[in-house]
Amino acid sequence: MSAEAEVASDLVVIGGGAAGMTAASRARRLRPDWRITVFERGDYVSFILCGLPYFVSDVIASHESLIVYTPEFFEKERRIEVHTRHEVRRIDHEQRLLEVTDLRTGRAFNCRYGKLVVATGAEAVRPRLEGIDLGNVFVLRTIDDGRRIKAALQQGGLRHAVVIGAGYVGVEMAEALTEAGLETVLIEATANVLPGIGPEIGEVVERELIDHGVSVHKEEMAQRLKGGQRVEGVVASRGEYPAEIVIVSVGTRPAVALLQQAGMALGSTGAVATNEHMETNLPGVYAIGDVAEAHHLVTGKAVWIPLGTTANKQGRVAGENAAGGSAVFQGIVGTATVKVFGLEVARTGLTEPQAQEAGFDPVGVTIEHPSRSVYYPGATKLRVQLVADRQNGRLLGGQIVGREAAAKRIDVLATALHTRMDVEAITALDLSYAPPFAPSWEAVQIAAQQVIGKLQRAKRS
Amino acid sequence: MSAEAEVASDLVVIGGGAAGMTAASRARRLRPDWRITVFERGDYVSFILCGLPYFVSDVIASHESLIVYTPEFFEKERRIEVHTRHEVRRIDHEQRLLEVTDLRTGRAFNCRYGKLVVATGAEAVRPRLEGIDLGNVFVLRTIDDGRRIKAALQQGGLRHAVVIGAGYVGVEMAEALTEAGLETVLIEATANVLPGIGPEIGEVVERELIDHGVSVHKEEMAQRLKGGQRVEGVVASRGEYPAEIVIVSVGTRPAVALLQQAGMALGSTGAVATNEHMETNLPGVYAIGDVAEAHHLVTGKAVWIPLGTTANKQGRVAGENAAGGSAVFQGIVGTATVKVFGLEVARTGLTEPQAQEAGFDPVGVTIEHPSRSVYYPGATKLRVQLVADRQNGRLLGGQIVGREAAAKRIDVLATALHTRMDVEAITALDLSYAPPFAPSWEAVQIAAQQVIGKLQRAKRS
Repeated sequence: MSAEAEVASDLVVIGGGAAGMTAASRARRLRPDWRITVFERGDYVSFILCGLPYFVSDVIASHESLIVYTPEFFEKERRIEVHTRHEVRRIDHEQRLLEVTDLRTGRAFNCRYGKLVVATGAEAVRPRLEGIDLGNVFVLRTIDDGRRIKAALQQGGLRHAVVIGAGYVGVEMAEALTEAGLETVLIEATANVLPGIGPEIGEVVERELIDHGVSVHKEEMAQRLKGGQRVEGVVASRGEYPAEIVIVSVGTRPAVALLQQAGMALGSTGAVATNEHMETNLPGVYAIGDVAEAHHLVTGKAVWIPLGTTANKQGRVAGENAAGGSAVFQGIVGTATVKVFGLEVARTGLTEPQAQEAGFDPVGVTIEHPSRSVYYPGATKLRVQLVADRQNGRLLGGQIVGREAAAKRIDVLATALHTRMDVEAITALDLSYAPPFAPSWEAVQIAAQQVIGKLQRAKRS
Repeated sequence: MSAEAEVASDLVVIGGGAAGMTAASRARRLRPDWRITVFERGDYVSFILCGLPYFVSDVIASHESLIVYTPEFFEKERRIEVHTRHEVRRIDHEQRLLEVTDLRTGRAFNCRYGKLVVATGAEAVRPRLEGIDLGNVFVLRTIDDGRRIKAALQQGGLRHAVVIGAGYVGVEMAEALTEAGLETVLIEATANVLPGIGPEIGEVVERELIDHGVSVHKEEMAQRLKGGQRVEGVVASRGEYPAEIVIVSVGTRPAVALLQQAGMALGSTGAVATNEHMETNLPGVYAIGDVAEAHHLVTGKAVWIPLGTTANKQGRVAGENAAGGSAVFQGIVGTATVKVFGLEVARTGLTEPQAQEAGFDPVGVTIEHPSRSVYYPGATKLRVQLVADRQNGRLLGGQIVGREAAAKRIDVLATALHTRMDVEAITALDLSYAPPFAPSWEAVQIAAQQVIGKLQRAKRS
């Protein structure tokens, strides 16, 4: 290494997002005497990226709302040394040494570590598209991305927006830009908005987008971006769309470059592989959050589904284990939810195609059922999709879209997946009922009854 | 018997509420050739008593909204013979014979049965109180009760109401009468509104009632009702309250008189005891719904918690078994929810005192946590109470009060109780998160973490 080892820390955390700061805090609680250091490349730590679309749409006025704790809080209250704008450029695990650059001054120094937690997160994919570097073409991944987009909107004069990619962030941004008063086109390469969630739920989401003025173009590919200094339009496979601002949301990937160089093994998903203690192939090195894989409790396989809830849980586990504990992260069931204008869209477990791919023989049903007693004012329809194993009726996954507690209703199915419940057991659940909140049979129970009926008919024939 | 056996049916159901009609419908599906007969004492079948307070407050305009299907529907679509205003006055199980009176004509006749399902429901307790029979003193249990109360309100001229008893129906009626423009006094003998739900949740409910203008009087007993023909006031242990209308809601009891005469065994709760097939001590006779006990999955004991959700499930099981099946009703976990103005109040499992009484060594926590990401507009506080077994951390019960999806949030805990989950497993659940719907740690998980902390501290000391 080029620089002298200037500092040493019992625990170093690379990346100051939710996962990293949770790990540091957990370790501090168990090791009051340890020196604990965090290096974060950006300006902020303890930030909440999931809130960015709402910052852009001005539902949340200040980006500071998206920062749970400041570096000063961690320094003072938890005696964690937080270095923002510090980039770790090399990990030498044999020497237990990091090469760190202070991005403010350009000064490089070495830092010795006892235990290491890597929480470098994910980065937005920027496709190789002609014009991708034009002005007003953005991805949305960091607080700074959000601030740049918001500044562009606040400058005014923008009338047309194009969002490329209709995943979670894409539909959230289509909503945010529409709410900001722009005519918004949403371009999606597959046949579905929220690809992966399936057509029965996707069509409800698409209808909601259209009803609120978003122009939805499926099975269409963006081909190039036009403009002078700033973007002026998007040329796509089926048409050309004016755009003074473009959001590219075609996905993210784990930020593994630094870690691969250090010899950290990746899994088949391309994210860092860990054991159930969140430890990588390098002893004493833990990987957590958006850079790490997670064990999927339904398939039994490693998956990469980067979400804040998982990051928090993995952070606790890694922090405890780095401090000498033996905590276990059991895994995830793939629960996620997103707001699309007045809709709540929620999923957990596997969709029917995912179940097939994972080697199950799935049976699925889609039903509609009211959110309240049907006679109670304000009752709206929930659409529920349930997927079960044809062999034994075991629940494999579910999706719910609706206008009332759809997000929290999915949690029953998530809990059921954690305990490998079958559809019979779901019909027997003692769930809450009162006319203003729910009908006497919950929608997921009606769906489970229909799965049972389908399985019985299949047996007889 | 005094009358000749004039009719015979393969299956007779006594009581045409949700439980009874569900049983009849289920049996019909499995036995297309059977003669199936229902005797209902009142004017309606397939009615939803839980909706009555909303009918009284005019949130629901017509009592017909509370009737899911008419007798004609059952006759035509399901070939179930439905006899309203028919009272079964004696059951002779040795002869498999019922003595039935047509209340319209006074004609008595006998009816032979093959299988029998009793779903006679519960009846309102009318305490022996001076003045209880005055005009405008009501209980709320039947559709007719609801119509009478609504007629009294619509006649006008009422300014003051007193509700005696602050259970679920009592608080719902306090809300309904307040919404109808009456100055409403709610009198409760115990130290809590919603007695049994505990002071930490009860105080939030009480605050909501007071904030909406209800005058709440706890630890006070109604002593007598004053008036001429119609009630004019309530004399209670701590004061006297004017009242042109009084709702007495001090509880219900299972309608077992007819069944006891027939030799049907009651459990320690006073409701009919059954096995897991919903069969009583009399072979071929099933008891379901509000007249029957249910197995409590947390305590392992029989309880009497009359609710529509349980009635529906028991109806399916009894209908299937009467038709020759062997379905099982696993039991309940005691889930219930109620709306109190803008609040959702929900519970499942045991409270701390209930857990103690059931022989557990419980540990409880009460926390507050936001319903959405704290920075997202509209986030409100949920108050969550969790009770666990000190020996092994097993969840024993939970209660949630709040303004957003509290009712549906309880369902995670209900599902967890069905599978005997411990608090550690609750913290590991992959629950849905998005800033508009939930924070990244759900309130029930924060509460579970606090239980774990409490258990660990107890171990160390």
